[in-house]
Amino acid sequence: MQTYTVHRKAGRQSVLLEKNVALISVATVAGPKEGAGPLSQFFDRCCTDIFCQEESFEKAELQMLEEACYLALGKAGLSPEDMDYYIGGDLLNQIITSNFCARSLALPYLGIFGACSTLSQGLALGAMLIQGGFARYILVGTSSHNCTAERQYRYPTEYGFQRPAYAQWTVTGAGAVVLGPAGEGRGPAIEAITVGKVVDAGLKDPLALGTAMAPAAADTIYHHFQDLKRQPNDYQLILSGDLGGVGKKLNEDLLAAKGFDIAPLYGDCGVLMYYPHQKVNSGGSGCACIALAFLGYFYPKMLTQELRKVLLVATGALHSPTSYMQQESIPAIAHALALEI
Amino acid sequence: MQTYTVHRKAGRQSVLLEKNVALISVATVAGPKEGAGPLSQFFDRCCTDIFCQEESFEKAELQMLEEACYLALGKAGLSPEDMDYYIGGDLLNQIITSNFCARSLALPYLGIFGACSTLSQGLALGAMLIQGGFARYILVGTSSHNCTAERQYRYPTEYGFQRPAYAQWTVTGAGAVVLGPAGEGRGPAIEAITVGKVVDAGLKDPLALGTAMAPAAADTIYHHFQDLKRQPNDYQLILSGDLGGVGKKLNEDLLAAKGFDIAPLYGDCGVLMYYPHQKVNSGGSGCACIALAFLGYFYPKMLTQELRKVLLVATGALHSPTSYMQQESIPAIAHALALEI
Repeated sequence: MQTYTVHRKAGRQSVLLEKNVALISVATVAGPKEGAGPLSQFFDRCCTDIFCQEESFEKAELQMLEEACYLALGKAGLSPEDMDYYIGGDLLNQIITSNFCARSLALPYLGIFGACSTLSQGLALGAMLIQGGFARYILVGTSSHNCTAERQYRYPTEYGFQRPAYAQWTVTGAGAVVLGPAGEGRGPAIEAITVGKVVDAGLKDPLALGTAMAPAAADTIYHHFQDLKRQPNDYQLILSGDLGGVGKKLNEDLLAAKGFDIAPLYGDCGVLMYYPHQKVNSGGSGCACIALAFLGYFYPKMLTQELRKVLLVATGALHSPTSYMQQESIPAIAHALALEI
Repeated sequence: MQTYTVHRKAGRQSVLLEKNVALISVATVAGPKEGAGPLSQFFDRCCTDIFCQEESFEKAELQMLEEACYLALGKAGLSPEDMDYYIGGDLLNQIITSNFCARSLALPYLGIFGACSTLSQGLALGAMLIQGGFARYILVGTSSHNCTAERQYRYPTEYGFQRPAYAQWTVTGAGAVVLGPAGEGRGPAIEAITVGKVVDAGLKDPLALGTAMAPAAADTIYHHFQDLKRQPNDYQLILSGDLGGVGKKLNEDLLAAKGFDIAPLYGDCGVLMYYPHQKVNSGGSGCACIALAFLGYFYPKMLTQELRKVLLVATGALHSPTSYMQQESIPAIAHALALEI
């Protein structure tokens, strides 16, 4: 039997890259509520209309995703033809927004589903494909829309459903990244990847997603540290996707119980997305939450080297409305990327 | 700027592998109708009950997928702990079957959505990750269930909806593959991959999926030949996933119009899955269609070298019930894998 060497595995769940794949350009398109939030000035575009002048919320979401993709390409001075693959996913059934976006891009397409963990799953896959020599440039995109997601997962927003204090608000927006060869002035490189396992804490409330996802975030961050023999202080910032206020605290507590104090350098995009007076309760959620906050606000801080080492941990709740109605618990996942410039 | 070499790209959409990643073991679990069909004796297990003694169709589908995964692992003499990743997807909203299967496997998980193209998308990604040095073994699984898919995409089967002559029958079953290092007696290697683009012929009838997917199959096969300067005769068999009788003929015609006569060596798993008296009209469909037919029937023929070169082309219709109701057309995709032993 032929022997075979695995070069890049570190521990059980992590791989180390050679720092030659970078996020060479990024773009963000935000919805009206996000455009009225504290990060407003950092987005490339803010829609003033939740419909984006389209006929349906679904078409609005697609318009935002397509615009983010073309903006990211434009900033890199590249066209769709320069991309080897489009990797995308979103929250909607059959990831329909991504499928239609892939149709207009006309690129070889790898559709993924990781719910709100899509951004880091897509970047992880893209980085491995480039590092493996299968591509030079890959476009990664994701989106969510409050009104498409709420009516699919919970109730149509027109019902005016009362949300509990621990509920989160699905972010409306889209983000896209061009992954390509790293180099001087080419953006932060992806230096390590920890692909998450499904963690199911047995919770069943589809309004308490931060609580359901926090154990998955803690598990992935813990294994990232273990696999790579790292400590929280190896990063300047640990950024989770959309745990919100409730889930963020739980993630801190779970990691503290395992001996890792991340609190001093830990932020959550769901907490950062809105002002308190915007009444989103526990914070933002959705694929676009980490896409808007990281790509809009933190990525430029990496370009200026204000931040040099960031651990990006997008988290996803992988339940479906059917599994919820069948009284199943909520499976969750988180994927971590170490970024360095 | 640092230069970067793409080693493995061939043409626009294809990559060449070094033939050191093989399908080292496979397993299939079929439903009752499939177990009464012509391929019956080639499946590892046939359920006699559409519920598999579970409480719901969804749980039945999950049971079949989990069993296929554990059977494939057992045949390879490996356990979940030996796998670096689980890559899976299915037809259900939020790929819930795969998510729950990943929960029981407790492996780093990459969820994908490619509808009925899932098997070849998963094998393509898995092969690239192993070839790239990011994994040694990867488990790839997929499933579909007639009753979970029909009620989600069309009508609950209990309604007794009348199906037109061109409609297909969603296959009930699951298949799993252990990808790992190639070698003597280790199964067929993945030698080339062509990742498909979304092709949308403007069709809107969700019962005519073979017709909607055939242009995507023809596009991918055409680019496979162009990229790699190959001809149909370079293979002993070209096998599509689930175009059914109507779509198979259309695919042949589309390729003939581009100068490639595949008809003499072309088979479609949807056509092979059932007897005419089983009244499935245009044939089988669903993620499990190519999984059962290829992994159950053709894979053993590759092990005995009766077949040495096969082009495997799983096709997927990427629409959603929402996009259909919003009068959108059906985006389709196909991914091709060249297998060689």
